[in-house]
Amino acid sequence: MAGTELTNVRSPRVKAARRLTKRAYREQDRKFLAEGPQAVREALKLDGVTLELFATAEAELRHPELVTEATLQGVPVHRASGEVMAQLSQTVTPQGLLAVCRLVHVALDDALPAEPRLVAVLAHVRDPGNAGTVMRAADAAGADAVIFTDASVDPYNGKCVRASAGSLFHLPVVIGAPVARAVSLLRERGLRVLAADGAGKHTLDDVDLSGPTAWIFGNEAWGLPEEVLGQADEVVRVPIYGRAESLNLATAAAVCLYSSARAQRVS
Amino acid sequence: MAGTELTNVRSPRVKAARRLTKRAYREQDRKFLAEGPQAVREALKLDGVTLELFATAEAELRHPELVTEATLQGVPVHRASGEVMAQLSQTVTPQGLLAVCRLVHVALDDALPAEPRLVAVLAHVRDPGNAGTVMRAADAAGADAVIFTDASVDPYNGKCVRASAGSLFHLPVVIGAPVARAVSLLRERGLRVLAADGAGKHTLDDVDLSGPTAWIFGNEAWGLPEEVLGQADEVVRVPIYGRAESLNLATAAAVCLYSSARAQRVS
Repeated sequence: MAGTELTNVRSPRVKAARRLTKRAYREQDRKFLAEGPQAVREALKLDGVTLELFATAEAELRHPELVTEATLQGVPVHRASGEVMAQLSQTVTPQGLLAVCRLVHVALDDALPAEPRLVAVLAHVRDPGNAGTVMRAADAAGADAVIFTDASVDPYNGKCVRASAGSLFHLPVVIGAPVARAVSLLRERGLRVLAADGAGKHTLDDVDLSGPTAWIFGNEAWGLPEEVLGQADEVVRVPIYGRAESLNLATAAAVCLYSSARAQRVS
Repeated sequence: MAGTELTNVRSPRVKAARRLTKRAYREQDRKFLAEGPQAVREALKLDGVTLELFATAEAELRHPELVTEATLQGVPVHRASGEVMAQLSQTVTPQGLLAVCRLVHVALDDALPAEPRLVAVLAHVRDPGNAGTVMRAADAAGADAVIFTDASVDPYNGKCVRASAGSLFHLPVVIGAPVARAVSLLRERGLRVLAADGAGKHTLDDVDLSGPTAWIFGNEAWGLPEEVLGQADEVVRVPIYGRAESLNLATAAAVCLYSSARAQRVS
């Protein structure tokens, strides 16, 4: 633990971290920010992922185990003033802990186990909160991987990292995959490719989900472009039993992923 | 349509609407704000709910059918400048349409049909976005009613109205119900009362959901207080198959509600 507190928001160290709030710099520096005790804890569980840790004095007192773990791993821990943390944080009420991490995604060809059972593909998801929530639901449902296509939001976006609640560090994540390549690989690996879309001919209740399945989720308005729908084996909708027009993307994805998880276990 | 545009953010009409962004004034005036074309459209489908409509010139051009419908219903339509709309709106990018509505909730005793099948209870939900998303999911899953207990967020909160995507106008909503009273009424009406909680002994997959069911959802950290857990017939958790610690509240609620909806239809 460094003895001196970082108080200057213009110091090179703070500026180097702060620029990671922008996608272009994340790509250039191959780093991103993971904010809050939950994200930091999960990052520290992976070898060599956490590169630096910023902590306020208060957060150090609240989470001494995380500071100790970082120190044991040889991760530089910088004590930061509240003002510095506010500069780095992308939340309204910063939680006082923020890790600089190396990017954790994997190549499409390396993402899947030998016999994948469940994969989530985010094809045109633009809202980072939704994308993070889908990652978390995919993790909870036991998915083997999450694939972000080239038309989707950056999973290293601060809001997405937060909404994933650590799941970004739990399962293989692919970014920037062209849809066609992802679909053909998934099919090659024995997965049936289902597109979730409100215009689907079949509902979740009509489809046999007991086999290995990849789900493609579209954008927030629940449209997947024709080119994507055309590549799927089936287009499936979540049935609407009441008067809602549709479901929120992340809740729809959770319903689909859990339907698969259950069908695979019950049958 | 009034010929003159409201441009003064200090005009009595604008101030009377603007104060409805605060819960205390909503309760006092018995009115709330519904923002955006989707909410306005759903509000206008109910008789006598929409009391006033504010619209920018641009929004009038984009949604002439809503302005026409309001006018047909004798609802005063005020053209508002962008500045006035920004004052009234609670979103970063206002959509130019905002209705002042009378409160639409019903009394607990009047909320349920003779033979209810599915009810959602929000017992300690504090995040308005989550609460609105649960309302939307309950509506989609065909729930008969949504009950907000006295420890939950106000469903008329602007974020909650938006996240509900019109569902606040679709099904009976109860507010401020004491948990014990809600539970005993639900049980009297033949519903089995299940508390959704990560500490549940049973998982969704172990429980027979084919009968009439009320789900109680807790706060964002997935804890329901002992007193609530103790009142439920069963405490049930969504199984976690992967490494996530838990699910987001709204996605967990959607998974539970859809599990019930399906079990009731399949069996």
